[in-house]
Amino acid sequence: MNFSISDRGHAYHEKLLSFMDDCVHPAEAVYEKQMRASGDPNFHPPVLEELKAEARGRGLWNLFHPHAEWGPGLTNVEYAPLAEMLGRSIHLAPEATNSNAPDTGNMEILTLFGTEEQKERWLRPLLAGEIASAFAMTEPDVASSDATNIRLRMEFDGDHYILNGRKWWISNALHKRCRVLIVMGETDPGAEPYRRQSMLIVPVDTPGVSIVRGLPVFGYQDRVGHAEIHFEDVRVPKSALLAGEGDGFMIGQARLGPGRIHHCMRAIGMAERALDLMVDRAQSRTTFGQPLSERGNIQDWIAESRVELEMVRLLTLKTAWLMDTVGNKAARTEISAIKVAAPGVALKVLDRAIQVHGGGGLSDDFPLASMYAELRTLRFADGPDEVHKRAIARRELARRTRERSRVTV
Amino acid sequence: MNFSISDRGHAYHEKLLSFMDDCVHPAEAVYEKQMRASGDPNFHPPVLEELKAEARGRGLWNLFHPHAEWGPGLTNVEYAPLAEMLGRSIHLAPEATNSNAPDTGNMEILTLFGTEEQKERWLRPLLAGEIASAFAMTEPDVASSDATNIRLRMEFDGDHYILNGRKWWISNALHKRCRVLIVMGETDPGAEPYRRQSMLIVPVDTPGVSIVRGLPVFGYQDRVGHAEIHFEDVRVPKSALLAGEGDGFMIGQARLGPGRIHHCMRAIGMAERALDLMVDRAQSRTTFGQPLSERGNIQDWIAESRVELEMVRLLTLKTAWLMDTVGNKAARTEISAIKVAAPGVALKVLDRAIQVHGGGGLSDDFPLASMYAELRTLRFADGPDEVHKRAIARRELARRTRERSRVTV
Amino acid sequence: MNFSISDRGHAYHEKLLSFMDDCVHPAEAVYEKQMRASGDPNFHPPVLEELKAEARGRGLWNLFHPHAEWGPGLTNVEYAPLAEMLGRSIHLAPEATNSNAPDTGNMEILTLFGTEEQKERWLRPLLAGEIASAFAMTEPDVASSDATNIRLRMEFDGDHYILNGRKWWISNALHKRCRVLIVMGETDPGAEPYRRQSMLIVPVDTPGVSIVRGLPVFGYQDRVGHAEIHFEDVRVPKSALLAGEGDGFMIGQARLGPGRIHHCMRAIGMAERALDLMVDRAQSRTTFGQPLSERGNIQDWIAESRVELEMVRLLTLKTAWLMDTVGNKAARTEISAIKVAAPGVALKVLDRAIQVHGGGGLSDDFPLASMYAELRTLRFADGPDEVHKRAIARRELARRTRERSRVTV
Amino acid sequence: MNFSISDRGHAYHEKLLSFMDDCVHPAEAVYEKQMRASGDPNFHPPVLEELKAEARGRGLWNLFHPHAEWGPGLTNVEYAPLAEMLGRSIHLAPEATNSNAPDTGNMEILTLFGTEEQKERWLRPLLAGEIASAFAMTEPDVASSDATNIRLRMEFDGDHYILNGRKWWISNALHKRCRVLIVMGETDPGAEPYRRQSMLIVPVDTPGVSIVRGLPVFGYQDRVGHAEIHFEDVRVPKSALLAGEGDGFMIGQARLGPGRIHHCMRAIGMAERALDLMVDRAQSRTTFGQPLSERGNIQDWIAESRVELEMVRLLTLKTAWLMDTVGNKAARTEISAIKVAAPGVALKVLDRAIQVHGGGGLSDDFPLASMYAELRTLRFADGPDEVHKRAIARRELARRTRERSRVTV
Repeated sequence: MNFSISDRGHAYHEKLLSFMDDCVHPAEAVYEKQMRASGDPNFHPPVLEELKAEARGRGLWNLFHPHAEWGPGLTNVEYAPLAEMLGRSIHLAPEATNSNAPDTGNMEILTLFGTEEQKERWLRPLLAGEIASAFAMTEPDVASSDATNIRLRMEFDGDHYILNGRKWWISNALHKRCRVLIVMGETDPGAEPYRRQSMLIVPVDTPGVSIVRGLPVFGYQDRVGHAEIHFEDVRVPKSALLAGEGDGFMIGQARLGPGRIHHCMRAIGMAERALDLMVDRAQSRTTFGQPLSERGNIQDWIAESRVELEMVRLLTLKTAWLMDTVGNKAARTEISAIKVAAPGVALKVLDRAIQVHGGGGLSDDFPLASMYAELRTLRFADGPDEVHKRAIARRELARRTRERSRVTV
Repeated sequence: MNFSISDRGHAYHEKLLSFMDDCVHPAEAVYEKQMRASGDPNFHPPVLEELKAEARGRGLWNLFHPHAEWGPGLTNVEYAPLAEMLGRSIHLAPEATNSNAPDTGNMEILTLFGTEEQKERWLRPLLAGEIASAFAMTEPDVASSDATNIRLRMEFDGDHYILNGRKWWISNALHKRCRVLIVMGETDPGAEPYRRQSMLIVPVDTPGVSIVRGLPVFGYQDRVGHAEIHFEDVRVPKSALLAGEGDGFMIGQARLGPGRIHHCMRAIGMAERALDLMVDRAQSRTTFGQPLSERGNIQDWIAESRVELEMVRLLTLKTAWLMDTVGNKAARTEISAIKVAAPGVALKVLDRAIQVHGGGGLSDDFPLASMYAELRTLRFADGPDEVHKRAIARRELARRTRERSRVTV
Repeated sequence: MNFSISDRGHAYHEKLLSFMDDCVHPAEAVYEKQMRASGDPNFHPPVLEELKAEARGRGLWNLFHPHAEWGPGLTNVEYAPLAEMLGRSIHLAPEATNSNAPDTGNMEILTLFGTEEQKERWLRPLLAGEIASAFAMTEPDVASSDATNIRLRMEFDGDHYILNGRKWWISNALHKRCRVLIVMGETDPGAEPYRRQSMLIVPVDTPGVSIVRGLPVFGYQDRVGHAEIHFEDVRVPKSALLAGEGDGFMIGQARLGPGRIHHCMRAIGMAERALDLMVDRAQSRTTFGQPLSERGNIQDWIAESRVELEMVRLLTLKTAWLMDTVGNKAARTEISAIKVAAPGVALKVLDRAIQVHGGGGLSDDFPLASMYAELRTLRFADGPDEVHKRAIARRELARRTRERSRVTV
Repeated sequence: MNFSISDRGHAYHEKLLSFMDDCVHPAEAVYEKQMRASGDPNFHPPVLEELKAEARGRGLWNLFHPHAEWGPGLTNVEYAPLAEMLGRSIHLAPEATNSNAPDTGNMEILTLFGTEEQKERWLRPLLAGEIASAFAMTEPDVASSDATNIRLRMEFDGDHYILNGRKWWISNALHKRCRVLIVMGETDPGAEPYRRQSMLIVPVDTPGVSIVRGLPVFGYQDRVGHAEIHFEDVRVPKSALLAGEGDGFMIGQARLGPGRIHHCMRAIGMAERALDLMVDRAQSRTTFGQPLSERGNIQDWIAESRVELEMVRLLTLKTAWLMDTVGNKAARTEISAIKVAAPGVALKVLDRAIQVHGGGGLSDDFPLASMYAELRTLRFADGPDEVHKRAIARRELARRTRERSRVTV
C-alpha cells in the first residue's frame, strides 16, 4: 500500500489550497447573500461563474478527470485529498473547479462510451462548464438499489426509443444550466437480468419530459435540485443510445467506483470543516466558569472525531489506491466499506458540532445543519448502508468458506 | 408509584382518540395543501380554525390546563398520555386543542402570577384561542441555559421600563395571531444573581420591537416561527410587570416543569408515529426477494425502538407522578432525566424510520424529516443535554457523599 | 399501572434493608476469606449457613415464594425491589434468604405440579434450605433457545425411564448440597412439537449421572457451578415424572416468567452497587489536579447510568405488575423486553465502573469484574437477546397489521 | 504515506505464516492440555520451548528487535503485520518468537541504555530466550498514568540504592523464568518533575523483594502473571542504574512508542481470529430454519467488524510509518489514537463473536473469553483511554489556535 502523493499531486494540492484560501472561502458570504437576494432556491449566482473563471485560469479545472486528455489526469490517490478540500466548501468548490457530481460521473461515461457526435454535442460543453447534466436512475416505486428493479420503459419502434416512466432524486436537474439527462431504463424485459437495461441521452427540453418538483431534504431545497421527473411518450433517436442496447447496467457499474470515492472524500472534508467549527466554538463559549473546550465530555468528542476521521480517511485512500492499482471491480468490497463508513463518521462529527453550537447549529448561521442534511442523503445514495453491509458480509462469509476448505484438504 | 389513569382520564383519552381518528389525522393532508397553496411558511390555514371549533365543541379544550377553573384540570399523570397522542400529529393536534407550547406555559404563569387586569387582557383571549403568545428568554450572545447570563436590559425610569437587547429562538412569534411577548430581562444587575431578572408583558406591536427574521431548523421555516427579535428603547408601563421586580428567575422555574413533561410526551408521540410508519414501510418493501420486515437487522431496529419507547414513557410518567405528588422542585432530577432521555430515544427511532424509507424519508412525502428537525431542537431547548447530565451527576455525587457519611458514623 | 408498594411490602423492605446492612454486607469479606482459605472454588462456606439462620430468624425466608403457604406470598411488584436489594450482594443475599435461582424456579414448579410424594421428598427440604437443586435443559449440541431442539432421550420401558444425552450450563449442580436435578428431555419424538418433551426428577446420585466439569465464565469458576452433565442409561421410576408425559414444554414456560423478573431485578441491584462504587472511586481519585468526579466525561457516565437504570427498573416493575394483574402469558412481550434491556444496561454501567477503577476494576479487589461476568451470561440465559428481539418485533408487526386492517375497514 | 511491504518484509511474512500454520496453531491444544495437567496457572509448558527452538531454527527469532545487530532489524511498518499474526495465537506465538511484551520493551531499553556489563548479564540471556523479565512501574496507590505520581523511594546511601514501595500489575513477574525487574522509582523528590525518576535493574531474588500475589483479570490468572510486588529495604549497587540518575521518565518514553504499536497490532490479530470464529459459528448454527449467517443482524455484525478492523489496522500502519520516518515523538498523537482505537474495536468484535457463540463463548471451549479479558486490560495499560483522548483533544485545540492566529494576521 502506497498513499504517497506524487510531486504533481503536491503541486495541485498547494495550488488548490491557495485558491480555497484566496477565493473560495471569502466567496461563501457573497454566495449566501446572492442566493438570499434572488429569492429563488435554484438561482445560479454570479459569484460561481467568477470562481469558475478564476479556477480555470489557475489550472484547477476538471480536477477529477482521470483521462489526461481532458483534465490533469490525476490518479484516485492523487485526487482524493483534493476532493476532501473541495468538500470543505461544498456549495462552491466542486462546481468552481468543474468537479461536481453528477456532472463528473456523466463526463466520465461520455468519455468512455460516447460516440464522437455525443462527445461533441454534450461532453465538450460539460468539460467547458457551459452546461450541467443529470443522471436519472432512481425510481419512486421500487427499491432502486437493485438495478434489476428499474421499470422506466424504453420501447424501440424501429427508429426512435419511446420512454415512459417516473424518476426521482435526480440531482442537478434543477440546475439553471442543466441541458441533458442520462436516463437508465428497461429496453428488453425478456433479456437476462443484467442485460435488460440501457442508457439514453435525453435533452431536458425533449417533449414529454416534465420536471414535476424538487424534493426537499429535511427542509432544504438544494440549489441544483433533487427532482422528480416524469417521462411520457418521450421520443429520442437511436443515436441517443450510450454504448449498446443492454449495456445500461455495465455503464452504471463503471460510473460508481470513482463517484463513491469522491463522495466519501468530500464527506470527510465537510466533517473536517465541522470539527474546526466545533473546536472554535468550544474555545469561545464559557458555561459555569469554564470554557467548553476544557470540559472532559467536549474533549472526548473532539478526540473521537479526530480519531474516527483519521481512520476513515485512510480507508478511503486505501480504496483509491486499490482502484488505481487493481481496478474498480477488485476494489468493490472496499468501495462498499467506505460508502458505509464515511457518511457514518461524518454524521457523528456533524451532530457533535451542532450540539456544541446550540440552537445556532441548526440554523443557517453556520453551515452545519445543511451539511448534515447533505450527508444524511449519502446513507442511501448509491444503495443504502444495509445493502453495502450485506455485500461485505457475504464476501467475508465466502472468504472463510474458501479458507476452511483449504485447511481441511 | 401509581400511574393508574382515573375514570376521568380514561374518558378524555377516549374522546381525544376519537377526535384524532375522526378529525385530526384526516385533516393532515388538507393542512399540507393549504400551507403549500398559500406560499407563505407562516400562513394560518383555515383547517386549523375548523379543528379548534370542533375540539372546543367536543370538550377537548385547554386540555393541558392544570387549574380546574380554566380547563379540565387534569393531573400531570392524566394529561401525559393525552400529550403523547397530540404529538402524533404535531402540526395540528396541540394547537387544535389549545394546548400548544409556548402558549401553554404562558397561560400557566399568567394564571399563577397575573394581575386581574393582565388576566383580562391577555389570559382570557389566550384561553379562548383567539390570540397567540411567545416567551422571550434565549439570547444570541450568551449561553442562556444559565439564566444569570441574561443581558437584555430593562431600565426603570420611574414610570416605564425601557427595554434594550436581542432575543432569538423565540417560538410562536411568527404566528399570525401572536399579539404578546413575555420577556425575561435584567432589571437590577447589582442584585444577587437570581434576583436580577424580571418578566415583562410586551405587546408585539409596541414601538421598538422588531421581529428581524425567522430562524430555520434544518432548512425548515416553522409555521409559528423561531424568531430573532430586537428591542430598541421599547417602553412599557410598570403595570406590564409580571409578579414583582426580581421575580423573573422564580417565574421561569415555575414554568419549566410541566412544559418539559409535555415536550417529552409529545416527543414520544412523534416517535410512536415514526415507529408505525417504519413498520408499515418494512412490510411493504421487498429487496432481494424478502420483505424488509423479515430481515434480522430491521427487526432489531423495530424491537429496540419498542423497548426504548416503553422505558422512556415510563420514566416520563414517573416524573409526572412525582410532580403531582411531591411537586416540581422535588422532581427536578427526574425532569432533567426525561429532558435528556426522551429526545434521545425519539431521535434514534426517527433516524431508523428514515433509513427504512430511503430517500423519501428525508423529503416531505412523509412527516419523518420534519419531526426529526423538531426533535433535534429539544436537545437544546430549556438547556442542552450536557447541562442536565451535569445536574443529574451532581445530585448522584451528593447522594453518595451523604450515604458514606451516614455509614461511617 | 400501579407500582405502589403495600404496607406489607414496605415492612419487608425495611426488614431486608436492616439485614443487608447489619449482616450481609459485613459478611462479604468473611465470605471471600473463607472461600480463599478453602482452596476449593465450590466450597460451601460456614458464613452462608450463619446468614441463612439469621435470615430465617428474622422472617426473611423464601422471600420469592408467591404462594402464601410456603413463603410470604408477595406479589411480583412487592418482591421486585427486594430482589434488587438481594442483587447488591449477589454471592450471599439470594442464598441467605433461600431465594436463589435456580432453586426458586424449581420450588415453584414442584409447588405447582409436584405430587404429594415429590413435595415431601424434594420440596420440603428445598424450602427448608437443606438441599440445593439444578434445572437441566440446555444442551451443548443444539440451539436450546428453541425447546423443540432438545435431544436428551427419555425412553420408557414400561416401568422406568431410561435417560441418555448431554446437558451443559447446568447452574447449581456443583453446589455442595445439590441433591436433585429436574431434567428436560424428549419422551416422544413422534408427538406434536410442543408435546414431545417431559420433565423428570433425577437424584444426583443416580447411577449413570456424571458431572463432567464446571464451565468457567471469563475464567471464573462459579461457586455453585455451571456444569456439564452426561446421562448414560440413567434409570428413574415412573413416579419421577413431573406432571404428565408431554408436559415438559408447558412446565418450562410456567417457570420462566418470574425467573426473568428476578434475574433482571438482581441485575439492576448489581448495577446500582457498581454505580455506587464508580461514584466513590471518582470522588477519591485525582488526575491532573482535578478529582475524576468533576470531569465532564465521568459526570456524563454517572448521569447516563442513573437515567438508564431508572428506566429499566420502571420497565421491570411494569412487567411485574402485568404478571400480577393479567398473567405471565399476557406479559410475554414485556418479559422479552426486560430480558434484553436489563442485562444490556447493567453491563454498560459495569463497564464504566470498571474503567473508572483502572486495573483494580478487573481484579478481585472489587466485585466489578465478577459481576460483569455474571451479567454477561444473562445475554444468553433463557434465550439470547436476538431471539427476544425477534419476538418483540413480530409482535409489533402483528399489531400494525391488525391496526391497518381496522383502519381500512 | 507508504505502507508497502519490502521484499524482506514479505519474506518474513511468508515464513511466519508457515510457522503459524505448521507449528503454532496445531500446538494450541497441546498447550491447553499441558497447562491443565500441571494444575499450576503459572506453569511453563514444554511445548513452548519446543516452539521456541523451532522458531529460532527457522530464523523467526527476536522478530521485534529494531536493531539489526540483535534481530532482523525490521522497521515498524515491516514488523506490524507480523505482530498482528502473532496476536492470532496470543498465548504461544509472541513468546515462541521471543517477541513477547514486556521482554521486548526491556530488551529495547537495555540495548539503548545498558552498560556493557548490564548487556552481558541481562540482555544476552533475554535475547537468547533463556530468561524472562518484568517492568515495574504502576503503583496501587496513585494514578500512575501520570509518571510524576510515582512514589516508590530509591535512596542512595553513597554506595547502594535502597528501595521501598509497592508496585502492581507487573506483568511477566510470575513467569517461571523471570529473573530480573526493571524498576521505576523516585530518586530525587526535589528535582524538576520529569527528572525525579530513575530506573534500576533489580534481580528478582534480591532480599526484600516479595511477590505478594498474582492479580486476576476477570477470573483468569495469566500464565506469566500480573503481580503485586513489595520492596522493603531492597539494596542494589550503583551499577544497577540504567542510564543516569533522573533519566527514568526519558527511558519510559522511549519504551512506549513501539510497545503500543505491538499491543495494537496483536489486538487486531486477536480480533481477526475472533471474526473468523464468528463467521464459522454463524455458518454452522441454525435457528428457526435459517443459518445465523443469513440473518441481517448477524451479517451487519460481520460487516461492521470487517470495516472497523480495516480502519484501525490502517491507522496503526500509519502510526508505524510515522515512527519509522519522523520518530516516536512526532507520532505521539497517532500513538495515543491507536491506543484508544484498537482495543475499542477489538473488544466490540470480541463481544459480537461471543454473542454468536452463546454460552460456549464465555467458557474456555473457545479462546474468546480469555482474549476479551486480555483486551480489556489494554484500555488502561499505558494510560486509560481518557488520558489519551485528553491528549488528542489538546493537540487539536492547539492546532486550531495556531490556524486562527495565522488566518487573522
